[in-house]
Amino acid sequence: VNELRKDILLGRWIEVLSESKAPSEYSVPEDQNPGTGCIFCPEGEHALQEIAAIRVDGRWQVRAVPDLSPLFQIEGELGRKGAGIYDRMNSIGADEIIIESPDHNARPWEAAEQVIRIISLYKSRMSDLSRDSRLRYILIHKDSGSRASYSHPVSRITAIPVIPKKVKDELDGAKQYFAYKERCIFCDIINEELTVGERVVFETRHFIAFIPYAPQFPFETWIMPKRHSCAFHEIDYPETEDIGVMLMTALSKLCSLFGDLPFSYFIHTAPNMIPRRNHWHTLGEDYHWHIEIIPRLTLAGSFELGSGFYILPTAPERAAKYLREVR
Amino acid sequence: VNELRKDILLGRWIEVLSESKAPSEYSVPEDQNPGTGCIFCPEGEHALQEIAAIRVDGRWQVRAVPDLSPLFQIEGELGRKGAGIYDRMNSIGADEIIIESPDHNARPWEAAEQVIRIISLYKSRMSDLSRDSRLRYILIHKDSGSRASYSHPVSRITAIPVIPKKVKDELDGAKQYFAYKERCIFCDIINEELTVGERVVFETRHFIAFIPYAPQFPFETWIMPKRHSCAFHEIDYPETEDIGVMLMTALSKLCSLFGDLPFSYFIHTAPNMIPRRNHWHTLGEDYHWHIEIIPRLTLAGSFELGSGFYILPTAPERAAKYLREVR
Repeated sequence: VNELRKDILLGRWIEVLSESKAPSEYSVPEDQNPGTGCIFCPEGEHALQEIAAIRVDGRWQVRAVPDLSPLFQIEGELGRKGAGIYDRMNSIGADEIIIESPDHNARPWEAAEQVIRIISLYKSRMSDLSRDSRLRYILIHKDSGSRASYSHPVSRITAIPVIPKKVKDELDGAKQYFAYKERCIFCDIINEELTVGERVVFETRHFIAFIPYAPQFPFETWIMPKRHSCAFHEIDYPETEDIGVMLMTALSKLCSLFGDLPFSYFIHTAPNMIPRRNHWHTLGEDYHWHIEIIPRLTLAGSFELGSGFYILPTAPERAAKYLREVR
Repeated sequence: VNELRKDILLGRWIEVLSESKAPSEYSVPEDQNPGTGCIFCPEGEHALQEIAAIRVDGRWQVRAVPDLSPLFQIEGELGRKGAGIYDRMNSIGADEIIIESPDHNARPWEAAEQVIRIISLYKSRMSDLSRDSRLRYILIHKDSGSRASYSHPVSRITAIPVIPKKVKDELDGAKQYFAYKERCIFCDIINEELTVGERVVFETRHFIAFIPYAPQFPFETWIMPKRHSCAFHEIDYPETEDIGVMLMTALSKLCSLFGDLPFSYFIHTAPNMIPRRNHWHTLGEDYHWHIEIIPRLTLAGSFELGSGFYILPTAPERAAKYLREVR
């Protein structure tokens, strides 16, 4: 019998199908063709202004550059105003591209040391951007495979002047739980998952990777720090090393299971703390940063679009088992 | 300059790109091949149990049948219970298919009288299902083109035992607005749109079709009754005729602009009113049913997935102009 499950954070119900679909039953979209004359390759590097980079023996290994077609502009005023009954503002913000490797065909998540460099650059870019008080949220995110805009491996940092809906919903859910229980909902989830065990994919000293009880997508995997912390960029170096290994392992396992599948991931962290009077996070007690990895295996139909109620073809416990068992 | 706009109902911000993309610049996914030996065609009709139908001269023109692979089952108890810190229940509900025409290759939205029959059957099925007090929400929805599960033209009715997230968010937004203004947010939107005019696609005596100020998708079109009413299935016959013409016109205009594009639509109506003690809708003052039509032109990337903040490549005012001007 199919089962309905409630996402404890968002209050959203989903349905888990009882006849769980195996990885081989998904049709994985084909990858796009690699391009030529890539501007992100070392040959094109002088065309791009460098914001930051991590170098080894004088050669950059990971590099932050401005987005080529930015959606947000760093200069200007917010210009909040009404438009009839509605509200608008200027698209102030920042768009950066993190070039994940000098090698156009690299799969950077295959080497732990490279993932650690990527995470380190994420951290330093986020620290820097968080000083701009106009920026309310900084989202680090990546598309790989057929969903990516470029064939060179990149991730993106998008800083925007509002708290986006999905993060707002998580903050509200966490706040409501904290008001009721006086505990962090994420810490409780970690505790529950480690106790039950069947949705855990793997763990390290500082992190846990697991499939949520009621995820939106099949094989959706969350990576969460065991130490309570609301801000990603406050990780220390041992945690950076650990999260590098964690992300590498999680992505490698997904690729082992599905071949070269398109995937996305993003880091959910607390909104920008300036001004610190932010009513959500005065103490950072009720939020807990984490990474969500989404394999792009399904497309929303009219039911999902109209309801926000998702159908999960593979049970989280099964998905976790597949991922635990694959190398 | 790009502009950020706030969805007044959901409180969600989106970005409208200043260099508006024309319809010809979208790559429209290809349609799937028509199948053979279709179970929904009149030849296969005896294999299916008929729930309801509209007949002309003894032949059915529109027909409701149970879904072939139902996601929800009508028999049983809700069985709400805890699972560790989480919550679950049984998948009680109903899945029906509305066969929109006996003709496998019909494009039923091309003939007003057929659309009126489809709307009439929607109405009678919703009235019937709304008597089951276990069912909290009834969603009428349709996928056309490459996103559809069947090549025969059908829509679906899915009745579920919970209020889904997206509807809950609309209800909360409408309730909050009502609490502040003591007016229906949807009635205010209609008034604003008719006053400003530039986002209106067309109107009839009873309905208005327009592009929302801050929609999630480009060319997303809403059809809303001018008369305040929270429940779709309370429409009278003149309104049924009117909405038939409205839906036909809106879909035909989209197809004129984009060729045979995949689209989805769904009807957002108030949750099931039984028990009437439902705290949202004692009087039905703060909700207003409507149809949302979504052309499937874009795919969410990691930024949209992670943020719930959408990028709109075509400005609503431009999209409305394209739709007004096409036949």
